[in-house]
Formats: sequence, structure tokens, C-alpha cells
Amino acid sequence: MSYRIIAIGRQFGSGGSTIARKLAEKLGVPCYDEEILQQMAAESGFAPEFLKEQTELSASRNWIGHALYAGMFTGNSYQDELWALQNKIITELAAKGPCVFVGFCAEYILRKHDNCLRAFIYADLDKRAKRIVEQYGETGVAPEKRVKDKDRRRATYYQYYTDLKWGAAQNYHISLNSGTLGIDACVDILANLY
Amino acid sequence: MSYRIIAIGRQFGSGGSTIARKLAEKLGVPCYDEEILQQMAAESGFAPEFLKEQTELSASRNWIGHALYAGMFTGNSYQDELWALQNKIITELAAKGPCVFVGFCAEYILRKHDNCLRAFIYADLDKRAKRIVEQYGETGVAPEKRVKDKDRRRATYYQYYTDLKWGAAQNYHISLNSGTLGIDACVDILANLY
Repeated sequence: MSYRIIAIGRQFGSGGSTIARKLAEKLGVPCYDEEILQQMAAESGFAPEFLKEQTELSASRNWIGHALYAGMFTGNSYQDELWALQNKIITELAAKGPCVFVGFCAEYILRKHDNCLRAFIYADLDKRAKRIVEQYGETGVAPEKRVKDKDRRRATYYQYYTDLKWGAAQNYHISLNSGTLGIDACVDILANLY
Repeated sequence: MSYRIIAIGRQFGSGGSTIARKLAEKLGVPCYDEEILQQMAAESGFAPEFLKEQTELSASRNWIGHALYAGMFTGNSYQDELWALQNKIITELAAKGPCVFVGFCAEYILRKHDNCLRAFIYADLDKRAKRIVEQYGETGVAPEKRVKDKDRRRATYYQYYTDLKWGAAQNYHISLNSGTLGIDACVDILANLY
């Protein structure tokens, strides 16, 4: 079986986005990441920066509370509308042809596509903490805490909309520890399955 | 990084043993499975059939209860002695050179070996149920139940001796869904990491 779409979920700092970009380059197919955000912004009227927070849960907002509270009165919160929009955009992009997705629960949204490989990239906490400092620089917050906070936000969002545990191997075809295998080995493994 | 030892954990019916055997053949290295059991039998005096049950928990015995109860009086239950023996044998075999291990918590026992790749093979329940009927035939018990029972026994044993969750991706370098990727693709991926 060969796959024409590869959808990658990843822990923060695992190099998942780098792997997705390198993989798409190697395969000569588009990598959808920023593209999804831009389309969502265009169709929803929200700013990309705001959407980025919304699709991973803002730490500063009581997101779940808001989503549930709004849903009590209208049936749908605006987060639910954004989830529907995200679904529509990812499904449309997938219909265009071979590509790589990273983030945005694409591997869940495309779970019924027979030719979509669902991959998860993770790494040990210490390696991820080191990587985010190299990639994004220092902030006032300890890198381990930044990694854990981001993981928690992604996991909460994923669980809320998919009812699945984020990062649990059984939800993916393949899970790779990029910290021990290395970025390039992960790219090669995924490229060979394409 | 290339790995000289590959240790495979696997769900019952996932084809993990077949993958290990094919992988070892492809790499021209020994595959340790039955060998471990034979050595444990020779050194402990227990029959291989009995040991097989002990290293995966017998369904018919109150294993945990016995292990804990015996430990209260002697400090060690005979299961603890077997665990120590299993550790010794696997560590000695690993020292002999490149090889493939399957089962026996080898990926945990060899976790400190820098050149040991830790892999987990799993598959969806329906595919595993189908596979065990093809491989081992029908019994009076529904194949789904046989699969689930065996998983539970392996998970309990693993957790008891390693204090880790069996099959959790973060304990492995790579986790592969053999049901969707196929046996041969799994063999190729692991062989390429060797």
C-alpha cells in the first residue's frame, strides 16, 4: 500500500513541522500548515494569529468553558464553527492531490481516507526543550514548562474535538521518536511509505 | 545513528513475531524468542511451557497476588527470580552482537543500550482477531476475546516489572501499525534503521 497524503501530528519541539516541510520538498508535493491558517482567516474574517491560538487553545482564555457556555445557547460556539471550517478546508485541500499536512488534527479529519498515512512525531522532553530554545529563543518561561503547556493545550483541543487521546499510538499508522531517530531518518521513513 | 540490536514489543496477533523473524533473516542476525525460553528453562529447571505462561501472566492463576504474597515472606517471589534470570539472559545475548529480540520486555531490559532500537508493533483489533484464527486456528473462545485477554496479561506483566505503560509510544523509538502498513513494510522500515 502506498500513501498519497501524509498527515502529521506532533509534540511541540519535536521537529514535526521541519520533518513535514522536508518530506514535502523531497516528494515534490505541497506542505499545508500556514496555508490552512490563511484560508481559515480569509473565510472566517478572524486574524491568523487569533486562529492559531484558537486551534490549539489559548492558555489565557477559558477556552473549554467558553466553548461549552456558548454552545448552551446557540447550539454552536464560534470554536465549533472554526472546527467545521477547518474540516472543510482540509478536506478540500486533500481532494486536490498528494500533499503533506502538519497539525490542525488533519490526521483525524482525514481518517476515512484510505490513502492517508497518519503519523505522529514525538521526542523526549529534554530534547524538545533544547530544540525550542534553538528555534524560537529564550522567553521568561522555562523551556520545559513551555513545552508542557503547549502539549497540554494541543491535547485538550484534540480530545475535545476528536474524543481521542492525542498522541496515542493506536490512532496513527506510525509514531516516530525524532529525538533518537533524528529528523532525516524520520523524513526517509515517511518518504519510503509514500 | 544506526542500531545494532532491535528489540520488538508487540500486541498479540499483530504479526510482531513474523516481522522479527523476517527482519533477522534480512539482516542476517539471530532472532531471539524461543531461544530465551529455552535458556530460562535450562537455568531455572522449569518447563518452557510453564515459563511462557509466567512471562506473560497466566489467566488461570492469581499471578499478581501470588507474586506479592510470596514477596512478603521471602523478599522475592519465584516470578521475581525469573525476571532477574530473564534480565541476565537477555543482557548476555545482547552482548554477543547484533540481533533481533521479540517479547520478554527486551526493549525495556536493554533501554540503556545506546545502539538498541526499541520498536512496538500493533494493529486494529479486527485485523488481529482475523490473524490469530489464521495462525493458530479456532478455539472455543471468540478470537476478539482471546486477543484482549492476551493483551491484558502482557500489559499487566509489563507494568508490574517495568512500571511503564505497555505499548505507550513514548517508551519506544518507533511504533508501527502492521495492520495498515503491512508486515513487509514494517520489516523494511526497521531494516533501514539498522
